[in-house]
Amino acid sequence: MRRCAVALVHHPVIDGQGTIVTTAVTNLDVHDLARSARTYGCSDYFVAHPIAAQRELVERIRAHWMDGSGGRRIPDRKEALGVLRIVESLDAAIELLGGRGAVEVWVTAARDLGETLSFADARARVAGDGKPVLVVFGTGWGLAASVLDSADARLEPIQAVRGDYNHLSVRSACAIALDRLFGAGR
Amino acid sequence: MRRCAVALVHHPVIDGQGTIVTTAVTNLDVHDLARSARTYGCSDYFVAHPIAAQRELVERIRAHWMDGSGGRRIPDRKEALGVLRIVESLDAAIELLGGRGAVEVWVTAARDLGETLSFADARARVAGDGKPVLVVFGTGWGLAASVLDSADARLEPIQAVRGDYNHLSVRSACAIALDRLFGAGR
Repeated sequence: MRRCAVALVHHPVIDGQGTIVTTAVTNLDVHDLARSARTYGCSDYFVAHPIAAQRELVERIRAHWMDGSGGRRIPDRKEALGVLRIVESLDAAIELLGGRGAVEVWVTAARDLGETLSFADARARVAGDGKPVLVVFGTGWGLAASVLDSADARLEPIQAVRGDYNHLSVRSACAIALDRLFGAGR
Repeated sequence: MRRCAVALVHHPVIDGQGTIVTTAVTNLDVHDLARSARTYGCSDYFVAHPIAAQRELVERIRAHWMDGSGGRRIPDRKEALGVLRIVESLDAAIELLGGRGAVEVWVTAARDLGETLSFADARARVAGDGKPVLVVFGTGWGLAASVLDSADARLEPIQAVRGDYNHLSVRSACAIALDRLFGAGR
């Protein structure tokens, strides 16, 4: 089974009008995605934000759960936060995994991106041998085209059997994607 | 395909010591679970809380997204909040679905509950005909024994292929459970 890491990108992402923006950190994104990453055996959960004050906020949340009262109250959460890495950019996350040539970058989107990697194929690929895989999630209305275009693969959008509505939170989308890749009893 | 509804219970649930408690409402639980429920075709998302002031808080969150500035900014979220029903108790949710004899109650837990319904079997059961299914999630450290014991089925705990750590948020657990029941391309 391949090493897998997750990244949550706050820039460059798009807003509701398609403009490239930087989003603010959402507190629950920090521990929800850490808990999902840790549960599904991911080695790292990168929170990427270009603004130092926002990275410091993430660091304060991390410290609360790792070293502060939160960690004493809920030790399981402390373990989850152990996979969190706070970085300036997606590129910095890729560097920490060994550089662009050493990692497969898979991006995600709620909308149809044309040619995509199905979750069935993706699950088979992570079960085999190969480079580490970095699964990238965008905040706001999703990853900017520059990030989508430079990826090695685009995961298929998450869809339901019935209905064509898809407006999952990034917390839910990450949990579902990791379960599709690494869930047991499937 | 059977009608499916989701319930998020704030009482009776247990805390870290196994004591029965009432938990406070978490803002993001309101819309994250609504968005998952709507995406996977559930008819209703019941937030059950015995304290009136907490139900009023949920109503304020609902109004922000349905009638307020939130709904104007993000119309997709308005549609998700349309499935939200605010009730006093799990029993009240069951009554709204036609009463105890008219609904199958399936409970969830992160820990092993003995005899459980596998997600594969559960998926086949919801795909067929029958009573509406109400899938029940607990806040805090999970549903109290009285709720677990009165259910028609207990869904198997969500687990990963590798590792035995399981500390998902209820937002993630609900998203994964609905994807396992109603996800496409599986």
